[in-house]
Amino acid sequence: MATVRLVSDAEAEANPAVKAVFDDIRATRRTDFINNFWRGLANDPLTLRRTWESLKAVMTGDTALDPVVQEMIYIAVSTANGCTYCVHSHTAAARAKGMTDAQHAELMAIIGLAAQTNHLVTAMQLPVDAAFLVED
Amino acid sequence: MATVRLVSDAEAEANPAVKAVFDDIRATRRTDFINNFWRGLANDPLTLRRTWESLKAVMTGDTALDPVVQEMIYIAVSTANGCTYCVHSHTAAARAKGMTDAQHAELMAIIGLAAQTNHLVTAMQLPVDAAFLVED
Amino acid sequence: MATVRLVSDAEAEANPAVKAVFDDIRATRRTDFINNFWRGLANDPLTLRRTWESLKAVMTGDTALDPVVQEMIYIAVSTANGCTYCVHSHTAAARAKGMTDAQHAELMAIIGLAAQTNHLVTAMQLPVDAAFLVED
Amino acid sequence: MATVRLVSDAEAEANPAVKAVFDDIRATRRTDFINNFWRGLANDPLTLRRTWESLKAVMTGDTALDPVVQEMIYIAVSTANGCTYCVHSHTAAARAKGMTDAQHAELMAIIGLAAQTNHLVTAMQLPVDAAFLVED
Amino acid sequence: MATVRLVSDAEAEANPAVKAVFDDIRATRRTDFINNFWRGLANDPLTLRRTWESLKAVMTGDTALDPVVQEMIYIAVSTANGCTYCVHSHTAAARAKGMTDAQHAELMAIIGLAAQTNHLVTAMQLPVDAAFLVED
Amino acid sequence: MATVRLVSDAEAEANPAVKAVFDDIRATRRTDFINNFWRGLANDPLTLRRTWESLKAVMTGDTALDPVVQEMIYIAVSTANGCTYCVHSHTAAARAKGMTDAQHAELMAIIGLAAQTNHLVTAMQLPVDAAFLVED
Repeated sequence: MATVRLVSDAEAEANPAVKAVFDDIRATRRTDFINNFWRGLANDPLTLRRTWESLKAVMTGDTALDPVVQEMIYIAVSTANGCTYCVHSHTAAARAKGMTDAQHAELMAIIGLAAQTNHLVTAMQLPVDAAFLVED
Repeated sequence: MATVRLVSDAEAEANPAVKAVFDDIRATRRTDFINNFWRGLANDPLTLRRTWESLKAVMTGDTALDPVVQEMIYIAVSTANGCTYCVHSHTAAARAKGMTDAQHAELMAIIGLAAQTNHLVTAMQLPVDAAFLVED
Repeated sequence: MATVRLVSDAEAEANPAVKAVFDDIRATRRTDFINNFWRGLANDPLTLRRTWESLKAVMTGDTALDPVVQEMIYIAVSTANGCTYCVHSHTAAARAKGMTDAQHAELMAIIGLAAQTNHLVTAMQLPVDAAFLVED
Repeated sequence: MATVRLVSDAEAEANPAVKAVFDDIRATRRTDFINNFWRGLANDPLTLRRTWESLKAVMTGDTALDPVVQEMIYIAVSTANGCTYCVHSHTAAARAKGMTDAQHAELMAIIGLAAQTNHLVTAMQLPVDAAFLVED
Repeated sequence: MATVRLVSDAEAEANPAVKAVFDDIRATRRTDFINNFWRGLANDPLTLRRTWESLKAVMTGDTALDPVVQEMIYIAVSTANGCTYCVHSHTAAARAKGMTDAQHAELMAIIGLAAQTNHLVTAMQLPVDAAFLVED
Repeated sequence: MATVRLVSDAEAEANPAVKAVFDDIRATRRTDFINNFWRGLANDPLTLRRTWESLKAVMTGDTALDPVVQEMIYIAVSTANGCTYCVHSHTAAARAKGMTDAQHAELMAIIGLAAQTNHLVTAMQLPVDAAFLVED
């Protein structure tokens, strides 16, 4: 169904570069589950490693934002970019990290509102107020 | 420069429907400043009022999310939708509400990362893992 | 399959805030059918009500544009935003309101043409002709 | 400022393939004005001709939709695609063809509403109602 | 499942305008296979012919770019525009024309990287360096 | 004008993490010129380094695709994502690496054509032909 094959655990075992990333995903996330995103990327071990290391650097460890907030930002971008898989995976992740129904409802209300005002602004082609500009 | 005129304070004074919204914006935000978004919308008093009431309902009062988090989600959607004015206005708002440089940097890193994985997923057309689906 | 549950009629009956909106949708549209958009939104009665009231204010009553034209504009935006559900629901609505096959064909031709020239313009980064600017 | 040069009238005079299209634009539109879109495209006479012929076939002559409606659909797509130049040029065209302020205001309200519901639907990942599907 | 019917070979045989295009697609591509894009478009013979002639003019014959490069550019645009059908059809076409797994992997890496830097730039609202501007 | 400050060479000299990346950009590209993208990112040295290392890994060295092809793919994605800065910077880069006017013209024709067929497909909501699916 995808445009690439999904790499199985057996295939990952046979490829040290893939195995190393799958092992690190499992250790970092404390779960045996490897979702399809990584199985698709594993066709290209270099992009697999680079993408995982970026995601690990940004989303884990000593972050400036709460993990639930991080996932809500991820849902917001994924929704605006129209990525079905990403909306599903990051909504599941946000819930697993503690997002409440009230937070999810408010997230969706903000996404809808922002889309509305984004389009109104673009239709009006408004100049940016001087007060919003960073002095340089 | 815009596709509509920007309604001045003098014009707003002469139109009770516009004046009522401008007054409420000033009272709610505790500032005399009315930014161009509302001055453009004021050409259509009904959409002005409806949009302001939606924004006020979602973004102010007793919210489930912190005001800085709300603005960061707004920036995320506005960036993905490519709205120059909106990125400027909500970045200024987030800073005014206390967003730190570290939070802004992490917000941008997540936006960039999400865009990257959104596009990789779309290029691969991956099926959603069963584990992510809500039971119904 | 969705990221939220779909609220059933039995559940709506048990929640006065949801029931009031569902009743008004049925009365306004003169049909018993409540489509999934409202059943998903009903998880958040405030956003349900606010969204329905906006849609009712814009799309029904004494409008400046013909109902078929309104739905065709809705299809155009939904297509450009890549919303599968919305393209389906508003194409069905446009047909129910009298959109002919010839109008649908021309709508699609314009959407395709606009997308083409939008992308050509963006690739060329053209300055806006002075003749197109609103005097202010 | 653009990524291509804008072809002047003098240059167009010297290139028969460009001149033929510029002449036809002027004759069809009954104006001497050639806007920057065509001056940018004129760097590639084949794409210039193909694009003009498509636009002429879809937007002029014996059309199924009113010219103002055609331009409003064009504005809707251009807004959702974030094309500054296109929003300006087609808003000017719609006004020149008779779009009233009330129609413009309603167009913008529908664009904003559609963007909002598009994003809400994508965030909820709703299944399409069976009632909306075309039988085949 | 679609918003239009898919035109069958029997129906195409009965409509000379459709038959002429289907015949030319088969002759140009040296295959009997007509994919769903053309079967959907065939509801509107004029758009069918115009679209096929544009695609034939751009993508076949004496082109400036290699056919595999053309298809990779098509995949890139289709991915950024979130078109599931198009990503599938042009990935299949690129492979049929000789795209290697290494080229596909690098294409996806560039698409992901570009999306990331596109969003970072939009979030930062950077001014274009003077060095990048075309002199005019 | 941007939402972040642009880091000057003097400031970069004072920050070893930034200086190391700027030095590597200069060495890798054999030029003293550091464009605004890196000066904006330099507010966050970690994202600066991570982004540069990703770009260097994908776009330089022993690549599967020709450097001009890489830049054309980058232009295609940047156009579809509506990133003004990125369209300018990568068009300049493609020209610097040898993209001819004929290649640029064909690139733009393909981008326009793909946008057109992407939107037509989305408006028609076509099912993917079985022939395009990867067996798994």
